[in-house]
Amino acid sequence: MKLLRFGETGREKPGVKIKDKWLDCSGFGEDWTEEFLENDGIQRLEKWLEDEADNLAKIDPNTRLGSPIKRPSKIICVGLNYSLHAKESGMPVPDSPILFMKATSSICGPNDPILIPRNSTKTDWEVELAVVIGKKATYVNKEEAMDYVAGYCLHNDVSERDFQLHHGGQWVKGKSADHFAPLGPYLVTKDEIENPHNLRLWLKVNGQMMQDSSTSDLIFDIPTLVSYISQYMTLLPGDVISTGTPSGVGLGLKPPRYLQHGDVVELGIDGLGEGRQVAHDVFNQ
Amino acid sequence: MKLLRFGETGREKPGVKIKDKWLDCSGFGEDWTEEFLENDGIQRLEKWLEDEADNLAKIDPNTRLGSPIKRPSKIICVGLNYSLHAKESGMPVPDSPILFMKATSSICGPNDPILIPRNSTKTDWEVELAVVIGKKATYVNKEEAMDYVAGYCLHNDVSERDFQLHHGGQWVKGKSADHFAPLGPYLVTKDEIENPHNLRLWLKVNGQMMQDSSTSDLIFDIPTLVSYISQYMTLLPGDVISTGTPSGVGLGLKPPRYLQHGDVVELGIDGLGEGRQVAHDVFNQ
Repeated sequence: MKLLRFGETGREKPGVKIKDKWLDCSGFGEDWTEEFLENDGIQRLEKWLEDEADNLAKIDPNTRLGSPIKRPSKIICVGLNYSLHAKESGMPVPDSPILFMKATSSICGPNDPILIPRNSTKTDWEVELAVVIGKKATYVNKEEAMDYVAGYCLHNDVSERDFQLHHGGQWVKGKSADHFAPLGPYLVTKDEIENPHNLRLWLKVNGQMMQDSSTSDLIFDIPTLVSYISQYMTLLPGDVISTGTPSGVGLGLKPPRYLQHGDVVELGIDGLGEGRQVAHDVFNQ
Repeated sequence: MKLLRFGETGREKPGVKIKDKWLDCSGFGEDWTEEFLENDGIQRLEKWLEDEADNLAKIDPNTRLGSPIKRPSKIICVGLNYSLHAKESGMPVPDSPILFMKATSSICGPNDPILIPRNSTKTDWEVELAVVIGKKATYVNKEEAMDYVAGYCLHNDVSERDFQLHHGGQWVKGKSADHFAPLGPYLVTKDEIENPHNLRLWLKVNGQMMQDSSTSDLIFDIPTLVSYISQYMTLLPGDVISTGTPSGVGLGLKPPRYLQHGDVVELGIDGLGEGRQVAHDVFNQ
């Protein structure tokens, strides 16, 4: 199943994609939230759709999409989880997953603009496979970790490199500006993805391919990450684990290249859909 | 005004403290949440109490208290914001605020146990003044920053030093275990605190004073922090900024000393009340 949320920012309604149609699921009476996932919402929704799918209103394909999950309790990102990206960042390949958090206030829809923050000169892109947690996970074994996964979505882990690396301290400063976490278009339930460790993921800027890799190159795979993170904190339904970006970010180019007003970012992952984000430099003009 | 939340974990009800009495505010019809603060809840509650305070049920003082605010969107912590604590940690006094995040799943009540995480040998204490945001703050000036503050509460920024410093990468790993963020007893509205930069804060372990300092020693004061953080991310109503801990943590002792099963932590800040937390080593036995 492919879950989506549509409508204006902050007032999104729930929907699903079935056979290339977006369908309005407002009648289900729930939004795609922590509570929905916690209470077996995906199974209940599937059952409900068996009866109702044919009667649902179609959504105009020009409608704005929001994040396919309503604000989760947290976004945990994994740093340097592709070898070539660690190399291009001038950092060693890590022995264990590097974790950092991204403020959930940075979440936006998959086709919303990327807002270049005030005083930014180094806003960069990072296509990532994001894992969405399906049930509360504390001290979970690697073997059972996939039981705690609801599905996957596309994520651009937008990053300001000066804020992240040169403003003192921890990376969160460069990861948390508004619109720095375009999520979606869909939350794709795990049953639809045969092997999440063999998906092509790519990102273009102004039509030029910048990142083009496969999740088969992940250093730490999804069960390892879910298990590992759950040793340090409790993962709640809806929580997002962004699994890291492959090589080809602006920071790694020689010379480095960062987003300018009007640049068009397109990105996608096999089976998870695509996003398109135009960079807007609203604060520095 | 002093807001509180009482009752069993996950089912807390809202209340207030007036003249040494805890009063049940369930009849107000709202919990102390982001939405409550966003919609002028404090002013509306004050007005409601003018008529209703005398009719409210008193809460048994043995009732468990929860966090005085329901799960906020984020907890932003400030590292090394007291000079002597930077020194005892073996780190330089920072030029600008060091920020890190703590998972909101770590929030608990002010008298709940501190759960020593699995594989932990270095669970440490940190008394801190926490600032609670009252309205959405993006790119706020220092001069107007206090307009965005709802009030203050007591916070023990419980930290696992090996997880934080020696497990690779960012501090979040050592800050986010369940029960690592006891908040409260009260959210004290800012009108009740004449000068938040002149409050004694202290913490005892088994009756022995370990931390005893004043918020007058903060390197970066509250308006500076609110303004600074709002340049990097949007602060939402209910968001918690934990302003840093003074010297006297276990890491800084010679030799270092960490919490053991049964240790009793007591802490307090002038005007904000006190908390008492017993360390429980449930996972390592």
